[in-house]
Amino acid sequence: VQVQGQFFMVDCGEGTQLQAKKYGVKLSKIDHILISHLHGDHFYGLIGLLSTMHLYGRKKVLNLVCPPGLSEIILIQMKHSQTYLNYKINCIEWVPNEPQLVLDLPKLTVHTIPLHHSVACSGYLFREKPKMRRLNAEVIPERLNVAQIIALKNGEDILNDDGTIKYENKAVTLPAAREFSYAYCSDTKYLPGLAKMIQKVDLLYHEATFMEDMKDRAENTFHSTAAQAALVAQSAEVKQLIIGHFSTRYRDLNLLLDEAMLIFANSSLAREGEVFEIK
Amino acid sequence: VQVQGQFFMVDCGEGTQLQAKKYGVKLSKIDHILISHLHGDHFYGLIGLLSTMHLYGRKKVLNLVCPPGLSEIILIQMKHSQTYLNYKINCIEWVPNEPQLVLDLPKLTVHTIPLHHSVACSGYLFREKPKMRRLNAEVIPERLNVAQIIALKNGEDILNDDGTIKYENKAVTLPAAREFSYAYCSDTKYLPGLAKMIQKVDLLYHEATFMEDMKDRAENTFHSTAAQAALVAQSAEVKQLIIGHFSTRYRDLNLLLDEAMLIFANSSLAREGEVFEIK
Repeated sequence: VQVQGQFFMVDCGEGTQLQAKKYGVKLSKIDHILISHLHGDHFYGLIGLLSTMHLYGRKKVLNLVCPPGLSEIILIQMKHSQTYLNYKINCIEWVPNEPQLVLDLPKLTVHTIPLHHSVACSGYLFREKPKMRRLNAEVIPERLNVAQIIALKNGEDILNDDGTIKYENKAVTLPAAREFSYAYCSDTKYLPGLAKMIQKVDLLYHEATFMEDMKDRAENTFHSTAAQAALVAQSAEVKQLIIGHFSTRYRDLNLLLDEAMLIFANSSLAREGEVFEIK
Repeated sequence: VQVQGQFFMVDCGEGTQLQAKKYGVKLSKIDHILISHLHGDHFYGLIGLLSTMHLYGRKKVLNLVCPPGLSEIILIQMKHSQTYLNYKINCIEWVPNEPQLVLDLPKLTVHTIPLHHSVACSGYLFREKPKMRRLNAEVIPERLNVAQIIALKNGEDILNDDGTIKYENKAVTLPAAREFSYAYCSDTKYLPGLAKMIQKVDLLYHEATFMEDMKDRAENTFHSTAAQAALVAQSAEVKQLIIGHFSTRYRDLNLLLDEAMLIFANSSLAREGEVFEIK
């Protein structure tokens, strides 16, 4: 996930480093890793990634947002391999079953979204903070200094030396861009109550391991169907839905997409390498 | 490593499952996994492999030969993912710095080979046990029963009812095939004393991370040069040497091979997917 120059890795299965290389994702840019739960397909690639960052000379602090227990797993491996990282990991282990603010960055926040899986599991809600107004360069006849630009972006007027208004803010700026939001809901059984936590997000990723014909199996294994993912999207009035985490039994993923689209039209498949941009 | 129908995986870095798939190695056939030391490139793929064996319904016991500490690393991950394997792992943690018998199977033994690396590290010596004599079917005029065949293979004669010799063993059997041996010496600094532990093995794998121009760096990082690997092969009078574990700084691996071959002619590179057969 990229937001205004900040790079986040969300879950990290075995082989993530190879995939990052394949798709041109620069590991050195990633300052935040978020793990949803401690099943292998979501974190077995993490320890190798942390080691690689060390070998590549990383010095910057890395935020690691994760379920309780992951720091213990990492530390025990570092101990036995006698590895002492060159960089600090700021490990933020959340409390299961309650929404929490886990990252408060200058331009956005990330909260956990409590899910219901066979082990402690949280999704993540990315929300941009209110943005600054944008300068309307066309109507400003002179070159402004940095202090003036910041003042205008903050919604202030520019005054003359005698205290009169030189530029009225609304006359020379445009409204701030809208704040975007993204909700990542990894492994979970169908949770109708989820919708109220992710109301009107611009983009929702929701797992869809099965189709409706396997609804019972979904329930028993704490997973969702494509239709259930779409119901959450519909009920939360999100703008766009991505479904993923498909059981290998489905050769033709379009069947899952069709099932979702019957309920929520603006649905897409999370195919390997696919990029989704919110504008 | 395959020996008379037994399959061994020796070390297991991240992505090993993908490589196994690529090269047609059936994971279900593997009954023994041996780990040389607890650096990531030698074991980060293990936990995922164990999980996959579980998901694929494995029931057979798996022998896991490894350094002290690996069982703790595995158990803590199983605990947090609440995974209870369907099969038993027979974990054989060796004692560092002394050669030990770690597997005693019907047709072969495996001993540790103490190495000198920055963490506890052992190579593994595979030795076939003496084989049975082979029947010379051409000179036996009748169909033998199972008891007679076993007797002959064990070197016994076949007697008539009156106690006289019907078939003298040496007349109807051929000598047993020779026992083969393979030594795997993973990460280690140059150990001249190694040679006496692996005298006359048919095949030696020895790491060769650097070339002689980086001899000091090899020494400081507890690795070997291609020439040092060849010196061990020469001194141990092995039949064939494979070098591997090359630093990524070497684009042209033939330079390492040339360095080894100057000292030990029958050397080969451990290239991805290469297969070596002892006959």
